[in-house]
Amino acid sequence: MINVCVNGYGTIGKRVADAAKAHSKIRLVGVSKYSADADASIARMQGIDVFVPKESAGAFESKGVEVSGTVEELLDKADSIVDASPDGVGRKNRVVYEEKGKKAVFQGGEEAGIGLSFNARSNFEKALNQNFIRVVSCNTTGYCRILKPLTERYKIKHVFASLIRRGADLNDAKGSQLNSVEWKAKSHHASDVQSVIDVPMSSIAFKVPHTHSHINSMFIEFDGEKPGKDDIYELFRNERVALLNTAATSSQIVEAARDLGLKRYDIFMPCLLVNTYMANGNSVFLSFAVPQESIVVPENIDAIIAQNSAMSREESMRTTDKLLGIPDIKEKLEKAFS
Amino acid sequence: MINVCVNGYGTIGKRVADAAKAHSKIRLVGVSKYSADADASIARMQGIDVFVPKESAGAFESKGVEVSGTVEELLDKADSIVDASPDGVGRKNRVVYEEKGKKAVFQGGEEAGIGLSFNARSNFEKALNQNFIRVVSCNTTGYCRILKPLTERYKIKHVFASLIRRGADLNDAKGSQLNSVEWKAKSHHASDVQSVIDVPMSSIAFKVPHTHSHINSMFIEFDGEKPGKDDIYELFRNERVALLNTAATSSQIVEAARDLGLKRYDIFMPCLLVNTYMANGNSVFLSFAVPQESIVVPENIDAIIAQNSAMSREESMRTTDKLLGIPDIKEKLEKAFS
Repeated sequence: MINVCVNGYGTIGKRVADAAKAHSKIRLVGVSKYSADADASIARMQGIDVFVPKESAGAFESKGVEVSGTVEELLDKADSIVDASPDGVGRKNRVVYEEKGKKAVFQGGEEAGIGLSFNARSNFEKALNQNFIRVVSCNTTGYCRILKPLTERYKIKHVFASLIRRGADLNDAKGSQLNSVEWKAKSHHASDVQSVIDVPMSSIAFKVPHTHSHINSMFIEFDGEKPGKDDIYELFRNERVALLNTAATSSQIVEAARDLGLKRYDIFMPCLLVNTYMANGNSVFLSFAVPQESIVVPENIDAIIAQNSAMSREESMRTTDKLLGIPDIKEKLEKAFS
Repeated sequence: MINVCVNGYGTIGKRVADAAKAHSKIRLVGVSKYSADADASIARMQGIDVFVPKESAGAFESKGVEVSGTVEELLDKADSIVDASPDGVGRKNRVVYEEKGKKAVFQGGEEAGIGLSFNARSNFEKALNQNFIRVVSCNTTGYCRILKPLTERYKIKHVFASLIRRGADLNDAKGSQLNSVEWKAKSHHASDVQSVIDVPMSSIAFKVPHTHSHINSMFIEFDGEKPGKDDIYELFRNERVALLNTAATSSQIVEAARDLGLKRYDIFMPCLLVNTYMANGNSVFLSFAVPQESIVVPENIDAIIAQNSAMSREESMRTTDKLLGIPDIKEKLEKAFS
C-alpha cells in the first residue's frame, strides 16, 4: 500500500482524497485543513482523518471537528503527498517535502519547473519513480487527452487554441468579473501542453461570467490527411474523453451529471462537442468542454501510482477509470447526447 | 431632402433616428411607438414626433406623450422607411410598404431574401436605387468591415469564425441564460457575410452571460502572403474600425466610451484587438469586439442615402462618419489603448 496524504483540501484536494480512499493500492492517511469550516466537518463525516496546524487545533475541537494530529505529523505519515494548495504555495511546500525525503504530486497552478509536467495518457512512463510530478491544469489536461491520440494517428502542423474560461468555480464567492469579457493573449496553455507533448501550438483565453465548464476551441491545421467526424468517434472510443453530439449548452451537461447521481456532478473527462466539427482543406475546427473541478483527479491518482512504480500505465489508468466510474459515465453521457 | 421615418423605436431604431435627425440630406418625419413607455416620453423630450396605432392614442395622451398621428400616416409621410421592428416582423411590414410604393431599409434579424444584404464599405454601389435593403446584423457588419479591406489586399483561402456572443443587451430584462454557455454550430454569420462579400468561411457562435460586446475570433488561412501586425494598422487606418492594442476586457472599452461622454456609450465600430494577433505559416488569428447596439447605425444611414441615390459611396460614408463622430472616436480610442 502507498500511504498518501492530501495537503490542501480544496476543490481538487477533496476530490483526490475521495479517489485515493477508494483505490486498492492507496491508503489515505489523512488531509490537512487550515480553517475550521464546513469542508472540515464534512471530511470527518465521511471518515477522513483531518490534520491541522498545531496552533489551530482548539478552533477545530471547539467546532466539534475531531483532529488526528498536526500537519507536520500528517506529512511524516505519507509516502506521497498530493499538494493541492492554492496556486504558488506548492513551491514553498516543496522545500519542506524535500527535507523530509517525501514524494509529491503538485497541481497545474504551480510553475512548470516544480516537477515533471504530467498527463497519464501522454507521458506516464516518464513519471515512473519521479519524486516531484506536476499534474498540468484542467484545460491543458483536456488538450493532452485529445491531442495525444490525434498526434499518434495524424500529423498536426499547428493548433490555434481559443478558450472560453469560466469566470469562477461554483464554490467561489469572489474573484470573477460580473459582466465583462476578459482576454489574455498568449495564454499559458500552449506552452503548458508543449511541456507534455510535442505539438506546434498557440493559445488565447477569454474569461466570461459563468461557473461551469471551460469551453475550448481548436483550429487544427493538419499536414496531409485530416480526421473526418466518424474518425473522431473511432479515435476516442477508448479514451478518457466523452463524445457528445447533441449537447448545446454547458448546463445540459451539468444537469445530466446531476441526474445520473454523480457526486458533485463530476465527470472527470473533457466532452468533445462533436456537433461543433467543421472542416476545410487540411484544417479542422473542434470544441470541447472541460469540467474544471474534476478533470485532473484521474491524473493525480495515476501520478501517485507512477511515482511509486506500483503499476504499468495501462493497469493504472484502467484501475483509476474503474474506481471513478469513467467508462460508465462516458457511455451514459454519449448515449444521452448521441 | 429625403423624408425618413423609423418604424420600431427600439435598440437600433432610436439610434438611427438620432443619426437621421442630424443628417443634412435627411428629414426625420417621425418614429412609430407601439407602447406608451419611457422610450416614447424620452423621444418627445428630444423633439422627435411620435406616431402610434390609432387605438393606442389615448394611452399615450394620458401619459402626457404628445401624439403626431397614426403609424399609417407616418408611413405615408416617408420616402424611405427604416424598419427596426423585432426580428421577423419586417417581413410582414414589407407587404405594406410595397403596397404604398415606399422604399425601406430592414435589419439583419430579417431573412436574407427581404432585400439586398448591405454593408456600406463592401457593396454600396449595388444598393443605388434599391427599394428594399437589408443591413446585415451587427457581427456580420463587423466581419464585412474587416474582411473586405483584407480581401482587397490579400488572398483569403478560408476563415473559421468563432463568436463569443453577449447573452443580452443592456436594456433586456429577460432572454438570456444566467450561467450557462450555449453554442450554435454552423451559425448564420458565415453565410450572411457571404451574402455581401465573396469569401470562403465557416462560423460557430457561443453565447455567454454578459451584456456588452460580442467578441469575434477569426482564424484566417491565406493563400500566399499574410498580413503582419504592422500591416493591420496600415490597412485599417482609414476604415470604420478601431485598432486597440492594450484593451484586455470589454468593460474597459465601454468605460472609455462613457468617459469620452459618448451618448449611450456608442462607438459604431468594431474594435480590432491587435494584441490578440497570432500567426503561424499562412494563418493568422485575430479577435475583434463588436458594440452590438450601435455598429449598424452608420450602415442604416448609408443605405437610405444609397437607395435614394443622394450621394456617392465616398461622400455618404464620409458624411455619416462625420455626423456620428466616428473618426474622432476612432482616434481617441486608439490613443487610449495604444
